[in-house]
Amino acid sequence: MIRNEVFSCFLFYAVLLILKMYVIAIITGQVRLRKKAFANPEDALRHGGLQFHREDPYVERCRRAHINDMENILPFLFLGAIYSLTGPSLFVARLHFLVFSLSRLLHTVAYLLALRAPTRSVAYTIAQIPCVSMAVQILTSVMAYA
Amino acid sequence: MIRNEVFSCFLFYAVLLILKMYVIAIITGQVRLRKKAFANPEDALRHGGLQFHREDPYVERCRRAHINDMENILPFLFLGAIYSLTGPSLFVARLHFLVFSLSRLLHTVAYLLALRAPTRSVAYTIAQIPCVSMAVQILTSVMAYA
Amino acid sequence: MIRNEVFSCFLFYAVLLILKMYVIAIITGQVRLRKKAFANPEDALRHGGLQFHREDPYVERCRRAHINDMENILPFLFLGAIYSLTGPSLFVARLHFLVFSLSRLLHTVAYLLALRAPTRSVAYTIAQIPCVSMAVQILTSVMAYA
Repeated sequence: MIRNEVFSCFLFYAVLLILKMYVIAIITGQVRLRKKAFANPEDALRHGGLQFHREDPYVERCRRAHINDMENILPFLFLGAIYSLTGPSLFVARLHFLVFSLSRLLHTVAYLLALRAPTRSVAYTIAQIPCVSMAVQILTSVMAYA
Repeated sequence: MIRNEVFSCFLFYAVLLILKMYVIAIITGQVRLRKKAFANPEDALRHGGLQFHREDPYVERCRRAHINDMENILPFLFLGAIYSLTGPSLFVARLHFLVFSLSRLLHTVAYLLALRAPTRSVAYTIAQIPCVSMAVQILTSVMAYA
Repeated sequence: MIRNEVFSCFLFYAVLLILKMYVIAIITGQVRLRKKAFANPEDALRHGGLQFHREDPYVERCRRAHINDMENILPFLFLGAIYSLTGPSLFVARLHFLVFSLSRLLHTVAYLLALRAPTRSVAYTIAQIPCVSMAVQILTSVMAYA
């Protein structure tokens, strides 16, 4: 499976996207420390007192970026893996993975830097295109077994 | 793997459930536009002004439906794939996938239409039964390797 | 695949972690009932009236524990499965899975019992180590196909 070219290509982008999600988590933690805004009283107590058990708009922005990634990247991990096994050409498959990955990277940048709308929404929408394409191709190849 | 009948049957339901999750995201976006309730100031600015950077109860309802889907459908994608490879009969496997999928569809409908309790909770609970069943069957078949 | 020793070992821990996530969902539901704090008006109506459509700090704590699990355990399901197929030694692989699983269990306990900081953060960080290790090993083995 690992020796399948398309599957290996998929894994490359999939793992990078997971690492990208981990980076958002690290950024969120750093922003919490810098802004002194903790979701849990026990964390606030350790960093100065209960007054820092509070919300911060930029922390919430990081949270939304992370949750949006979960909503989109986690299904991609499934769709991409299965799609890779349906025998697509390497060129077309890589195009799917690349469009998704670059759009999701742009989505994260647009979210964290609060770029002017609709940059983020456009990135979101473009990333959905390869996902729906892969979903349809998987459905087509298994339809007979429903 | 794609030629495995049970696995293909699983893929059919799995992909439909992912598309169902995408539909919730689309509905959320449409409700945000119609109700003018945006999570990000940059979106509000594009759609009339910062006063629309606000929460809306129905948008929050859509969000909860989506997050509940992630909590349940994403683990199903894993459990269903592995369970399919443990060699269950097609009839029993399809029953698992069908009960899960129909219950989760009912869960979404009950959530978005705010159907009278406990419709949504019952749908949630019924959907968990095939998941726990698959989890136990997988555990049984790998127990020796723990 | 199920007969692959490392993969079976992975499945054992993966399924236990999924069941652990389900337990958080059950606890959240029980706390909602006991504290009478419901996210949806239709649930509140069924349990005494709209005044119970409200937030509760401990319910929110359970929610955060659950979402943190999704952010970390769901990517582990992917990384662990692929890593298992790259041919690691059973000893080293089990060490990865065990460190991750025990740390995530400690993370949940520390979250739900509000253990003194930084217990929860330390558990989180230790759990990330095997994940990043697996991610790097997968990247290394597919780098040529990027």
